[in-house]
Amino acid sequence: MSVPDQVRVDGVDVAHLPVSDRGLHYGDGVFETITVRDGLLRFAALHRLRLEEGCRRLALRLDIEAAFAELQALARDQHRCILKLIATRGDALARGYAVTGAESPRRVTLRYPWPLDNAAALEGVRVVSVRTRLGESTQLAGIKHLNRLEQVLARIEIAASGEDEGLMTSSSRRVISGTMSNVFLVHQAEIVTPRVDRCGISGVMRAVVIREANRAGLRLRETDIEPAELARATEVFLTNVRIGIWPVRQLDSRRLQPGPVTRRLQGMMDNVDE
Amino acid sequence: MSVPDQVRVDGVDVAHLPVSDRGLHYGDGVFETITVRDGLLRFAALHRLRLEEGCRRLALRLDIEAAFAELQALARDQHRCILKLIATRGDALARGYAVTGAESPRRVTLRYPWPLDNAAALEGVRVVSVRTRLGESTQLAGIKHLNRLEQVLARIEIAASGEDEGLMTSSSRRVISGTMSNVFLVHQAEIVTPRVDRCGISGVMRAVVIREANRAGLRLRETDIEPAELARATEVFLTNVRIGIWPVRQLDSRRLQPGPVTRRLQGMMDNVDE
Repeated sequence: MSVPDQVRVDGVDVAHLPVSDRGLHYGDGVFETITVRDGLLRFAALHRLRLEEGCRRLALRLDIEAAFAELQALARDQHRCILKLIATRGDALARGYAVTGAESPRRVTLRYPWPLDNAAALEGVRVVSVRTRLGESTQLAGIKHLNRLEQVLARIEIAASGEDEGLMTSSSRRVISGTMSNVFLVHQAEIVTPRVDRCGISGVMRAVVIREANRAGLRLRETDIEPAELARATEVFLTNVRIGIWPVRQLDSRRLQPGPVTRRLQGMMDNVDE
Repeated sequence: MSVPDQVRVDGVDVAHLPVSDRGLHYGDGVFETITVRDGLLRFAALHRLRLEEGCRRLALRLDIEAAFAELQALARDQHRCILKLIATRGDALARGYAVTGAESPRRVTLRYPWPLDNAAALEGVRVVSVRTRLGESTQLAGIKHLNRLEQVLARIEIAASGEDEGLMTSSSRRVISGTMSNVFLVHQAEIVTPRVDRCGISGVMRAVVIREANRAGLRLRETDIEPAELARATEVFLTNVRIGIWPVRQLDSRRLQPGPVTRRLQGMMDNVDE
């Protein structure tokens, strides 16, 4: 059980918010989950870019400067921890979906202790394809908004089997991502990862892997991936900011090994710059 | 501005809930908006059926009996009002999307004064097609879950133009619904309404109209509707439990009249039984 050791709402140490909040009523908001190492937010600039894009898409006038200042303050004396920022449109000023424009965004920050590291996962995880599909919406794709029922239902699917992660496809049957991770396939000398412009999340660790692969001269392409292509991949790995890179050692009934490309990228991630 | 005159959380008169609620983090829950007339919940059985289906799909173990008892108590001394029930999975017991199964669902009820009746709307409303599309998911289609960003974005689109309602299509380009209403078309002697098994909400007033049309011997079909079919419709109308039936008098650039089928159904709705 990982419960937060610090919670703030609009900068105040309280653990409640009004039931009129549009985040509750409609999932009307965005979030970021940020890792802290030695008092600093890792990949702060990338998190900030995604948060800005989310606020732009939802027409949410969040004070992003103030949000990051608070996150940095929460990180300051921490060796390792996880910070979550939730930004909602604030209280509903009328009944119904309509936005009046006078709403005042609300900022919630939660600090969680660093979870027990799962050393075994760095040697490979078990992944199963789930039935729950990701709906497609160009307006909502890529950003980390609060409408996450698809991920919740996918997690419920894998809870019984004890798999580490569920692999999700879109309503138009492309491979998109894990429930909490992005996915990469290695085909011969090329790395491919699904586009996230119709569904899926533009993960910060995904962006870091793409950047570092390019810097290292590895061939990497964002593309449409059909489920049948999974069988051709010589390596498969998952990414997110907490786990870093997880090699996949079982994908449905297929066994895989953590391969040389995955190992090379894993080695690069520990000391990657911001 | 319509603010609630009564708010309860798990039966207690408080207006706050913990920031750890999964409704806030993921939109992990369902809601119902119920109209009250002369102290009674209108269409209680239909609301209850949909709520049960929503809880079943999300594996949410809500005490539905207790929820309806509370709604009935909130309705008792009211001539007219609107009740909203929000049921979430309750507090997150761990970080992340996974459901432990030990969560305790949370019930929020809000009572709103009856809004000023819009008599003009009963004579016809202006509707515009919006760009925001509805993502498709058979697991989430039909139920009234808390992931409503698509509706919020669609309302933002129509806010500037002052239209009464936005007409939404799915990612696979079928006509589905308004942002807060279901839609019906009249083609000659037949009434058609979009299927809501891949996206959209199975509206209570939609169900009442279908039932009453059938009882009255009108031909009605739930089907896939292409946007091009809108131009062929001789009548178009919208439904929800608060508005009842709104004839459409303008659909994008096309002018329409409230027709005989719409008028007949409107006449039937006022005194329909439960």
